[in-house]
Amino acid sequence: MKILLNFSSLFLLCVFLLTSCKQENRFESKSEIVGKDPLPSWNNTSTKKEIIAFVDIVTDKNHPYFIPVRDRIATFDNDGNLWSEQPAYFQLFFAIDRVKEMAVDHPEWKNEQPFKAVLENDMKSLAKQGEEGLIKLVMVTHSGNTIEEFDKDVKEWIKTAKHPTKNVTYDKLVYQPMLELLQYLRANDFKTYVVSGGGVDFMRAFVTEIYGIPKEQIIGSRIKTKFEYNDGKPEIIRLPELEFIDDKEGKPLNIQKIIGKKPVFASGNSDGDLPMLQWTASSKYKSFMLFLHHTDSIREWAYDRDSHIGRLDKGLDQAKKDGWTVIDMEKDWKTIYPNE
Amino acid sequence: MKILLNFSSLFLLCVFLLTSCKQENRFESKSEIVGKDPLPSWNNTSTKKEIIAFVDIVTDKNHPYFIPVRDRIATFDNDGNLWSEQPAYFQLFFAIDRVKEMAVDHPEWKNEQPFKAVLENDMKSLAKQGEEGLIKLVMVTHSGNTIEEFDKDVKEWIKTAKHPTKNVTYDKLVYQPMLELLQYLRANDFKTYVVSGGGVDFMRAFVTEIYGIPKEQIIGSRIKTKFEYNDGKPEIIRLPELEFIDDKEGKPLNIQKIIGKKPVFASGNSDGDLPMLQWTASSKYKSFMLFLHHTDSIREWAYDRDSHIGRLDKGLDQAKKDGWTVIDMEKDWKTIYPNE
Repeated sequence: MKILLNFSSLFLLCVFLLTSCKQENRFESKSEIVGKDPLPSWNNTSTKKEIIAFVDIVTDKNHPYFIPVRDRIATFDNDGNLWSEQPAYFQLFFAIDRVKEMAVDHPEWKNEQPFKAVLENDMKSLAKQGEEGLIKLVMVTHSGNTIEEFDKDVKEWIKTAKHPTKNVTYDKLVYQPMLELLQYLRANDFKTYVVSGGGVDFMRAFVTEIYGIPKEQIIGSRIKTKFEYNDGKPEIIRLPELEFIDDKEGKPLNIQKIIGKKPVFASGNSDGDLPMLQWTASSKYKSFMLFLHHTDSIREWAYDRDSHIGRLDKGLDQAKKDGWTVIDMEKDWKTIYPNE
Repeated sequence: MKILLNFSSLFLLCVFLLTSCKQENRFESKSEIVGKDPLPSWNNTSTKKEIIAFVDIVTDKNHPYFIPVRDRIATFDNDGNLWSEQPAYFQLFFAIDRVKEMAVDHPEWKNEQPFKAVLENDMKSLAKQGEEGLIKLVMVTHSGNTIEEFDKDVKEWIKTAKHPTKNVTYDKLVYQPMLELLQYLRANDFKTYVVSGGGVDFMRAFVTEIYGIPKEQIIGSRIKTKFEYNDGKPEIIRLPELEFIDDKEGKPLNIQKIIGKKPVFASGNSDGDLPMLQWTASSKYKSFMLFLHHTDSIREWAYDRDSHIGRLDKGLDQAKKDGWTVIDMEKDWKTIYPNE
């Protein structure tokens, strides 16, 4: 699996998480959280204090840094930022599980790479297939069906599939402190978005339930689609071709395309999020840039500058230089996962 | 100008309208409109009654056709549907006006088509340049600058430019009855979107103020963009290449890409909107499909099946066959433009 991680950054579609939020956005009102600690899973370190100080200031009508509600746009990366991303993006495991499921109808895959490697659980051979092999894997498992069929596949998978080492369903590997941060921002009239390299339709199948973020606030990578209208029945079919990769420069570009407003709060964990944070830092309003630094090898994983996945290198340097806030997972988070 | 209209359908970016709505979304609550006629500029015909009956039913918790708030997505075409589109899409006039303004820095345009034709007000020659010439016109006037610069250009234009025959600023040519319909739907917790062939950044420069629809609910055609980061300054630059045309099949595809939910209310006026209405008609909920038929040659314009712009042909047939609602502008609308 280690070798495979080199290629994982191709897989631009992910998400799930925890089950603590019920259905749709039931936002607590500001008054409901007055007097309560809005971030109970965060230790009382400077990180937590900086977040709360920012929210207090920009929501205070009499403060020079006040931000009108319509411009309170907050964008969050997903993999490694709202849920874990080790030992590989969880969407890759979806692709692998789908290949095994689909193999019943594809006896030829027994002798055809990259499927052979997947079916034999031979991750070393899979890695040898390179980018081309992995793209093939994703395309075959993510296309050729309608949007409704794909949605159903993902929903079934997220309920049952287990993480290879943690041995729990993937939705249990969401970060409790980040759920609280999302909720806290919404209670203060921020509009929270996911902006992820993960596939947008993959995420939409479960993100609303887990994060309380509606489908129209999920932004991600996309494959091409086509519209068909036969016998009075319209369908949107998923095609085996990448259309847009929502990573690196793709993040601010997609934010502009889809939201059309510059965020005032951006949260990420890798250099793939750096352009989104740079874009946010150039807001005409006071803005907040947040990097999650994976420092907890015991409770989660520890990685940064030399990581194959979620590499945080330039981002750490710029955060230091420009005074952005960096979460030290080990020190700043009281709990990592819900129900711990 | 008549000949030019053949090509106008290339210009996939428009919008503006009226000045009746103040700033951002100040939605009236449902209780505020109880007892008031929500659609005062509509005559008391079956069209108005059908709209109100639909809204009453789907917002009634005890009715089998009740639609949860999160799924109350309403999508509106813009040109010829929320504001006029004759004698050509208004965005084309923006392109023409921009060429005249930019010509100061381009003395070579005096001898170079399609600019020469524009500068000499020679619409016949302009039409002769064909699609290629018109795309050149749009690309030159809509790209090469940052998103902020383009936004500023459009904002200045909409305040000052006058319609060639009506001789008022374009924002005066929004339909008062449609402003009321947008407001009525929002008061009933529908999320209203513009889904237009017009350019998304062109529309965003003024749509919020005119329609009360926030930027993130404007969907349109796009040109390509690139992200640059120099000396700590991030910029998004507009490139002279079409990226996505939000027309015909592009409308349901873009709705799925950006909203990720199927609308339950769709409103359009041409065959370019037909796939959006077909998509909406396939909702699992009871849905409402609305075509605006331009029948008022006195107060506005009359055109449908044989029109060069805003052609409504297959749409009229399907509306009749499937029982969709068709607005007869002459009979159904008491007033067309605000302050009449």
